Amino acid sequence: MPQETIRAIDVIRKKRDEQELSRAEIEGFIQGYTAGEIPDYQAAAWLMAAVIRGLTRAETAALTDAMLRSGEVLDLSDFPARKVDKHSTGGVGDKTSLVLAPLIAAGGLIVPMISGRGLGHTGGTLDKLESIPGFNVNLPVAEFRRVLHACGCCMIGQTAEIAPADRKLYALRDVTATVESPYLICASIMSKKLAEGIDALVLDVKTGSGAFMKKEEDAVFLAELMVETGERMGKKVVALITDMDQPLGLHVGNSLEVVEVLDILHGKGPEDLRELCLELAGWMFHLGGSAATVVQGRKTAEQLIQSGKALQRFRQMVELQGGDVRAIDDPSRLPRARHTVEVSSSKSGYVAEIACEAIGVACVVLGGGREKKEDTVDPAVGMILHKKVGDSVTAGESLCTVHYNSETRAERATQLIQDSYRIAAAPPLKVRPLVHRVIQRSKEAN
Amino acid sequence: MPQETIRAIDVIRKKRDEQELSRAEIEGFIQGYTAGEIPDYQAAAWLMAAVIRGLTRAETAALTDAMLRSGEVLDLSDFPARKVDKHSTGGVGDKTSLVLAPLIAAGGLIVPMISGRGLGHTGGTLDKLESIPGFNVNLPVAEFRRVLHACGCCMIGQTAEIAPADRKLYALRDVTATVESPYLICASIMSKKLAEGIDALVLDVKTGSGAFMKKEEDAVFLAELMVETGERMGKKVVALITDMDQPLGLHVGNSLEVVEVLDILHGKGPEDLRELCLELAGWMFHLGGSAATVVQGRKTAEQLIQSGKALQRFRQMVELQGGDVRAIDDPSRLPRARHTVEVSSSKSGYVAEIACEAIGVACVVLGGGREKKEDTVDPAVGMILHKKVGDSVTAGESLCTVHYNSETRAERATQLIQDSYRIAAAPPLKVRPLVHRVIQRSKEAN
Repeated sequence: MPQETIRAIDVIRKKRDEQELSRAEIEGFIQGYTAGEIPDYQAAAWLMAAVIRGLTRAETAALTDAMLRSGEVLDLSDFPARKVDKHSTGGVGDKTSLVLAPLIAAGGLIVPMISGRGLGHTGGTLDKLESIPGFNVNLPVAEFRRVLHACGCCMIGQTAEIAPADRKLYALRDVTATVESPYLICASIMSKKLAEGIDALVLDVKTGSGAFMKKEEDAVFLAELMVETGERMGKKVVALITDMDQPLGLHVGNSLEVVEVLDILHGKGPEDLRELCLELAGWMFHLGGSAATVVQGRKTAEQLIQSGKALQRFRQMVELQGGDVRAIDDPSRLPRARHTVEVSSSKSGYVAEIACEAIGVACVVLGGGREKKEDTVDPAVGMILHKKVGDSVTAGESLCTVHYNSETRAERATQLIQDSYRIAAAPPLKVRPLVHRVIQRSKEAN
Repeated sequence: MPQETIRAIDVIRKKRDEQELSRAEIEGFIQGYTAGEIPDYQAAAWLMAAVIRGLTRAETAALTDAMLRSGEVLDLSDFPARKVDKHSTGGVGDKTSLVLAPLIAAGGLIVPMISGRGLGHTGGTLDKLESIPGFNVNLPVAEFRRVLHACGCCMIGQTAEIAPADRKLYALRDVTATVESPYLICASIMSKKLAEGIDALVLDVKTGSGAFMKKEEDAVFLAELMVETGERMGKKVVALITDMDQPLGLHVGNSLEVVEVLDILHGKGPEDLRELCLELAGWMFHLGGSAATVVQGRKTAEQLIQSGKALQRFRQMVELQGGDVRAIDDPSRLPRARHTVEVSSSKSGYVAEIACEAIGVACVVLGGGREKKEDTVDPAVGMILHKKVGDSVTAGESLCTVHYNSETRAERATQLIQDSYRIAAAPPLKVRPLVHRVIQRSKEAN
């Protein structure tokens, strides 16, 4: 019973003084906090010490493990196939989860995906799914298992049973300026993902102007931390550092993004989005043991799209989760904004840059995202980009179509979009690659 | 109205990121916390950031000022004489406050002294005063003023009106491992002392094995910080770095220390205690404008003791605060322990060292101090040392007489005392000076 011998103040003091905490100390602290025996003010002091002093790799793994075991860990051992998942650190126009869950399930693996909502300039998987009329992301665990058994994938929100320590700590971090720490971010993400009972995890760590980690070195640091933490916990983990310096794909906004997901599943859609989906799918099939190589995994994914099996699996999941499949068969039945307006280029040239965070903020301004957690989301609004970085444009040509329900919101959003495009006389010398690098095994061990 | 525009989370984030806070930000944060608008968990996160990142001199002064103004600042402008006080950072056997308050008042200055209780190995002025039967340290401000008008000095505990921010913050620091910060210690001490409405302050910053600041450099750092903070607030402040590597004087324990105070006021008592009292009194008279030099101030103090005026003033204060003056006239009426036992030296030689903190702990073990704030104190127990560092001793000779009420406690205390004395064959090469140095004006300004 480690928690009996652990005094919260000693754990705080040790971290304050840059000493390494033992697994028992971290476990006792997290158990005590989750049980309400350690008050918020002691947890807040500890969090600040952890943010400033940092955590060692061993401490990060111990924290992840303690948070993971603060609640229910799904036991999916009754499923014969391997369980794999993907997690993205968040961006603008990133709808890959909606493509990947049915695609990987169509390939025979199990995808028990627990996702989050949009906050700030980034969109959220749950909000996108909920733009499908009737789609229910709040399934109890028993129902989650039933859907998984039926179609191999299921997409829900965090339940009360999964990693309650993370939910409690995250709420506290949000109000004590202790969010921005790679160690705490790693423990938060990995505790929730590993509580899904998965065998393998592909991490999509975004970097660029639309990502939380603007600097590539920060994204790499977090990615290495998560990969090593996952490995310490006996999971197969890989992280792809991918580009979020401009929106992914062309559609931004909840129902508009579902439309683009359907395009991809129909074998169409924009090149960058399809490419990232295939790359992530390749890794998921590879780590899940269905493909000897990533290239092989990509081929499997391409075939599953071409054959329509991935789309069929998506339709099945939507149906099992209470969604209206008529909206899948006919996307015009998805929520649509009442008005559209074009954002036109004021000059001719080439798109040199799109300020990606500003595009995300424009979507929030339209009502398609949240400034505060309590905000409700308008599923219909958003935008369809017609020009991406490197594209040529003539003066007066549309850069983007804005879908809106409020005139005043549209005006502000239009201005933001206009300002976010930088048009240059010559094409950019080079366009950033989609996948910056792959992090498979952290070299550093602590 | 600075607090309206200040968001707690921004203040926390700035300190976390090592940015300097403005006066308005610190004031808004302290006002918000005192008013209960900023919760404990945000204050705890800020405190930890402040402990690890430190505060600039300007921030320390702003914090002190905000804490000072969180409550009532005594207005003693109706008193014609200068108001002076002394503060000690705490030690073992340090009873100088009881000598100085009446001594300085007898010299014509006003001493509005608000003191604390003992905690851990250190004694507290209030506990010592309360060993005088009937002595009331809990006077309301009106009564405090009345006693000051009548005899020029009054010694009470912290009132609810004085620096409530400090009381609230201190309670939080105590449970969040954020006590040990010179910046926060400075703000805590100075806010309370300057709320007394004084013109000048003499700080006695202890260093050595029985002090909170074991290392002289830490004591000097804190002293410089307090002197500069006081100066920034328009007060005359000096700090003496004094020795606490062995107990001050010979008596340790509440009523036993009152006995030694009476010895000093009778012109007797141990040399080290008398010397420190005179030195501190010299500075108090000098800063208070009653003496052109410290040496002049010391002479005044010596005369006031010799003439019996200081003792008379002490007797008067005791009477005005409800104490039984018969115990002043006849110290055998003070609380006395039921038993005594001698701690004898096991060998002959010279006292090379006395582990000072262990002596303080021995007094706590006897019941004369507090391990936790809630503990009650036995006023009668303690010890009288017969040997100090440098003294010769023969095997079997008594080092110390223990005054006790519980056999089992006495056994533990006796062992602690025995172990704390180190006897060497030769006398120590040098004995640490009583006053290590005087800090009058901080050179560093920020």
